[in-house]
Amino acid sequence: MLDISLLGTGGMMPLPKRWLTAMMARYNGKSLLIDCGEGTQLAIKECGLSVNPIEVICFTHYHADHISGLPGLLLSMGNADRTEPITMIGPEGLEKVVRSLRVIAPELPFEIKFIELKEKTETIHIAGYAIDAFKVSHKVTCYGYNVRIERQGKFETEKANANNVPMKCWNRLQKGETVIEDGITYTPDMVLGETRKGLKVTYCTDTRPVDIIAEMAKDADLFICEGMYGEPDKQAKAREYKHMTFEEAANLAKKAEVKEMWLTHFSPSLVRPSDYMKQVTDIFPSAVPGKDGKTITLNFED
Amino acid sequence: MLDISLLGTGGMMPLPKRWLTAMMARYNGKSLLIDCGEGTQLAIKECGLSVNPIEVICFTHYHADHISGLPGLLLSMGNADRTEPITMIGPEGLEKVVRSLRVIAPELPFEIKFIELKEKTETIHIAGYAIDAFKVSHKVTCYGYNVRIERQGKFETEKANANNVPMKCWNRLQKGETVIEDGITYTPDMVLGETRKGLKVTYCTDTRPVDIIAEMAKDADLFICEGMYGEPDKQAKAREYKHMTFEEAANLAKKAEVKEMWLTHFSPSLVRPSDYMKQVTDIFPSAVPGKDGKTITLNFED
Repeated sequence: MLDISLLGTGGMMPLPKRWLTAMMARYNGKSLLIDCGEGTQLAIKECGLSVNPIEVICFTHYHADHISGLPGLLLSMGNADRTEPITMIGPEGLEKVVRSLRVIAPELPFEIKFIELKEKTETIHIAGYAIDAFKVSHKVTCYGYNVRIERQGKFETEKANANNVPMKCWNRLQKGETVIEDGITYTPDMVLGETRKGLKVTYCTDTRPVDIIAEMAKDADLFICEGMYGEPDKQAKAREYKHMTFEEAANLAKKAEVKEMWLTHFSPSLVRPSDYMKQVTDIFPSAVPGKDGKTITLNFED
Repeated sequence: MLDISLLGTGGMMPLPKRWLTAMMARYNGKSLLIDCGEGTQLAIKECGLSVNPIEVICFTHYHADHISGLPGLLLSMGNADRTEPITMIGPEGLEKVVRSLRVIAPELPFEIKFIELKEKTETIHIAGYAIDAFKVSHKVTCYGYNVRIERQGKFETEKANANNVPMKCWNRLQKGETVIEDGITYTPDMVLGETRKGLKVTYCTDTRPVDIIAEMAKDADLFICEGMYGEPDKQAKAREYKHMTFEEAANLAKKAEVKEMWLTHFSPSLVRPSDYMKQVTDIFPSAVPGKDGKTITLNFED
């Protein structure tokens, strides 16, 4: 069971009743946050969530609307007596940016670990999540993310017996552990069937609609995608500022054959995103405009 | 006419429906902001005010809850096409702190001027305001501020004539200008009577109740003062974290003989400040708990 909350839907600056775009994933008691603009810690609270289960923060890029809330978030975590380390993932320069911002949050009772992205695509396994980072096309280096929950194969008694795995090892092998018994090494693949379909959420803001997005979002259960501009006459602006129109996002969703798309990262000038949804659903019917706090629970098939 | 808005009343971290403590003064079309925590730009909007008339920002100190909203505010000013310079005033280190925070707001279409405070008390005249900064007692260097509007004396025809001031110079002298006419220099004091009582607002957060506060707040029209803790049993905590209880604030207000006091900078644990007002009004009757957006218009006497 993977819970996804879209914490805010704004781009550029927070507005009354529209927090900046960010996403919280919750799985197995561990939370993952993507982006943290000014007010994201309040958006988390208003969503009824809390900050200290966050084990990982992924940053798309370092424009202020995606990271300006970080010092406040870190201090709130510290004030809630966090001692567990936190891992941050983002484009190159992450540690330098965070160090600069910490001029106003120098003392924290927990460690920060940094993973800086360098490749076009990278996959990181952490806190039960499989995270695919992929480079998109914005004014500065920017990444989109897949947040995936991988699902192992079913336990197969016949396979375990065929591989002569002692019964007392079955339980631990089923949990994914490797077990050594009487000098023999047993691995999970000796008792498990083929890997089953997991869950996949693709999150992508601040980019032109480049091919890599559709490739990475392929068959996603949920595609959270920027739609900075709804109005048809904003195409040139989208190109200039390296953002997307609703229509461009819809075409990506169609190409990627995702189950569902939520639009987000609306321009402050876009007052009612729902006014511009027809052009979107004409291209890709399973699309809705995101709402602050919109939450979905994704479950494994069968 | 000086308008004062208390933008938020929280300390430590922003909460849903409680912005961080900050104050906006408006006089003669020019605004002055004291402190800018996470969300202050939203508090300004919710108050119906705008960011671009702000000509001066004073910082009490550089704990995150007093400055973390600065990058977002500056970017919002830039997005609204500001080109006019802005002046920032704060304890030593201001330029370094702002430069660090601007890692996420490097490009702005306006200049920032810095005035770093070094003395125990300093007075700065800017944008029609007289600002007295005074060092208080917190865990880090912290200043309180008086925001004053000085009021010159009345125009006195007899005095102008006695000083042989040509009538064509009267108007400019009355406006405070120095005028040279036929090689003779005329100064405003040659036509004006004694300076009249102006307006004074004292703003003071994040400090123990030291004497300088009562001295500087003497006879203020409005005293906005921190009251981190309302509960009587929080006295030791107030001392440890170098903050004040409601009672300590009340004693300062009484000693300073201010007209009115608003308490602010409430601890997140202090849910209903109004529950603890009796102990305050017993000491100083003209005290109220601050509210987000609370605004007053102060007018000159007579």
